[in-house]
Amino acid sequence: METDNAEKPTTRLSTMGPQAPPDVSAARRSHTKKAVTNGVPSAVVYCERNFGQIDGKTANGLVRHSQAYRILSIIDSKLEGRDSGQVLDNVSNAIPIVEDLEAAVTREVHIPDTLIYGMAPSTGKMSPADREVVLDAIALGMNIVSGLHEYLGDDPEIRGVADAANVTIRDIRKPQPSKDMRLFDGSVSKVKAIRIAVLGTDCAIGKRTTATVLAKALNARGIKTVLVGTGQTGLMQGAKYGIAMDAVPPQFCCGELERVIVAASHGDEPDVILIEGQGALSHPAFCTSAFILRGSQPQAVILLHAPKRAHRCDFPTMPMPEPKSEIALIEAFADTRVIGVTINHEAMTDAEVGQAIDSLSRALGVPVTDALTRPEVQLADMVLAGFPQLRPVPLVAAE
Amino acid sequence: METDNAEKPTTRLSTMGPQAPPDVSAARRSHTKKAVTNGVPSAVVYCERNFGQIDGKTANGLVRHSQAYRILSIIDSKLEGRDSGQVLDNVSNAIPIVEDLEAAVTREVHIPDTLIYGMAPSTGKMSPADREVVLDAIALGMNIVSGLHEYLGDDPEIRGVADAANVTIRDIRKPQPSKDMRLFDGSVSKVKAIRIAVLGTDCAIGKRTTATVLAKALNARGIKTVLVGTGQTGLMQGAKYGIAMDAVPPQFCCGELERVIVAASHGDEPDVILIEGQGALSHPAFCTSAFILRGSQPQAVILLHAPKRAHRCDFPTMPMPEPKSEIALIEAFADTRVIGVTINHEAMTDAEVGQAIDSLSRALGVPVTDALTRPEVQLADMVLAGFPQLRPVPLVAAE
Repeated sequence: METDNAEKPTTRLSTMGPQAPPDVSAARRSHTKKAVTNGVPSAVVYCERNFGQIDGKTANGLVRHSQAYRILSIIDSKLEGRDSGQVLDNVSNAIPIVEDLEAAVTREVHIPDTLIYGMAPSTGKMSPADREVVLDAIALGMNIVSGLHEYLGDDPEIRGVADAANVTIRDIRKPQPSKDMRLFDGSVSKVKAIRIAVLGTDCAIGKRTTATVLAKALNARGIKTVLVGTGQTGLMQGAKYGIAMDAVPPQFCCGELERVIVAASHGDEPDVILIEGQGALSHPAFCTSAFILRGSQPQAVILLHAPKRAHRCDFPTMPMPEPKSEIALIEAFADTRVIGVTINHEAMTDAEVGQAIDSLSRALGVPVTDALTRPEVQLADMVLAGFPQLRPVPLVAAE
Repeated sequence: METDNAEKPTTRLSTMGPQAPPDVSAARRSHTKKAVTNGVPSAVVYCERNFGQIDGKTANGLVRHSQAYRILSIIDSKLEGRDSGQVLDNVSNAIPIVEDLEAAVTREVHIPDTLIYGMAPSTGKMSPADREVVLDAIALGMNIVSGLHEYLGDDPEIRGVADAANVTIRDIRKPQPSKDMRLFDGSVSKVKAIRIAVLGTDCAIGKRTTATVLAKALNARGIKTVLVGTGQTGLMQGAKYGIAMDAVPPQFCCGELERVIVAASHGDEPDVILIEGQGALSHPAFCTSAFILRGSQPQAVILLHAPKRAHRCDFPTMPMPEPKSEIALIEAFADTRVIGVTINHEAMTDAEVGQAIDSLSRALGVPVTDALTRPEVQLADMVLAGFPQLRPVPLVAAE
């Protein structure tokens, strides 16, 4: 398989750096007869006294969606005994909230593979009690995942016991040393998969959600699709391939994104690679999408827009752009085309969503849908219409 | 002066962070009767066994141009006794090369203000001998400036003696802690100065040189002009205002550039602020210019182009863009206009430069010049033609 591939083989771990997703093959070796099923490591999420709160947003996100980790339970003594889905969204998800690490471990047949530090305290630092939990988990042989600003892998004590226990520490926010980052070299253009970037007219508008729904819809149609994450949340939730672009110095942003896309192509040989966008190309403050377009060289773009959003998120003085101008900007900036628009329906009735879909599709001349309130097949069809060479399995068989 | 200004007063040091240029007012306080003249700190550049070589490029650059530091001498025992300008460019510059720190200090009436570590070893690290020189300079009360990847300010021993000696350590490459960086907030739009970004069709094409020549030419015409640097070399050479964009996480790039421009406006109340570009907006690997355009919101752009350059610097497979397409890209990406083009005359005869100026100015409909081989007044006129509200002093009086 590797020898057929145009890209040079790369070692997963060195390729992915400290932000690397779990090394499933390594996990398989050490835990084959333990908790790992389907190659996805199991994880307990530590969110003491913060689950469902703002500072527990990492845990909240993981409960709603996790792909690289199979979430077994949440630790929060205050909510012990509750169902985490009920707490969060009033829908049971069978992920229980337990009192402490011991309870989380005792209820499993095997020691869980991973402890995820599921809080994002504004200080970015752990409390002494948190620290004990991390050390206990390491002593149990669990790998650690953390999105703290304080890098656990740089902490001498934690590093020492982790090395001794032969477990890994994954600091999501930690960039690789510059010397290990690579510059863009154009190898992304040799990737066989169709690359589609999911961009938006603003931040926090649903790019990752849309990309996730689209990946699922395409895979359901037999179009092998891989999502490349570019944000910290996505990485933690489990994009198998991704980098936290905001932790990468600008000179390496294009090259590091390219590297991950090439790794995804090499590792999974997908038909389609979706690339999560960041900010908006037109955004005065957050234009990381410039790097995303340059680094991924996408053949197509899907654009998200929130028709009822009055101004840029967190910037009351900055008006939202119109989709038309954003499309023109994207297509002027990069050799790509916007093949469709999806709507974020915040503050909209279903009728308004329908009207927006109609009027935008007429005005823009591209398909328009809402990834969440309209059938997923419409989102997949947007891609299939743009790329007739993709051969989906018949819809009936797939559903 | 401060109360008249629309922007809020800011403290220089906290505004500029670890990359801050020398705090002239502080230097004045401590060294008024010592080496400081005209508010510019004096500096000895340490470049042992590397002056004139590739790894000595920081020292080489400082000898050719230094604005924030008055370079007294270069330390390189191998070239002791030579004139640094002669070694570098066959033109005497009265900056001698001395044997060691003791010789550098002994020849001055006062202890120099600063030791600049003038080497950029590929390892990014100091040798033990280098370390002794740094410690000796600190013991003499000299501030330290370093562009090493290894941050001297984070070294416990160096930090300790520096604190004890009450000297500063300026690590050019070190970004501020994220918590001290600011997001773009649009305040740059309230800056009264005309903002002009100097961009290019490639890296290493002369953006900083052009901006420096233009600033000098405009100042000579009585148009108060300040240059905002965005690269490490520029910062080290002495842009009074600047950030090393490549050391800033993408989410803060626009905001940090805005902050420095606002600080320049507040500090100097210039008529014109020139912003040094980076890479090229069209560059697949280096598109930091996207942040430069967003963060500085320039009313105008001057574009550099090297007509004889066959491909992007360091990227043999990437063809150079035409100025026409780069101009279209810039004007599509940002609400600005390209008011002129300057030529990098590498590999060109003077006749070819003349032909390129003629043909490009006809084809593009904007003034074209070469900042180095044509009269500087042409470069200044490019700006004056674009902004008639600027009132230069008569040319005769200025020359």
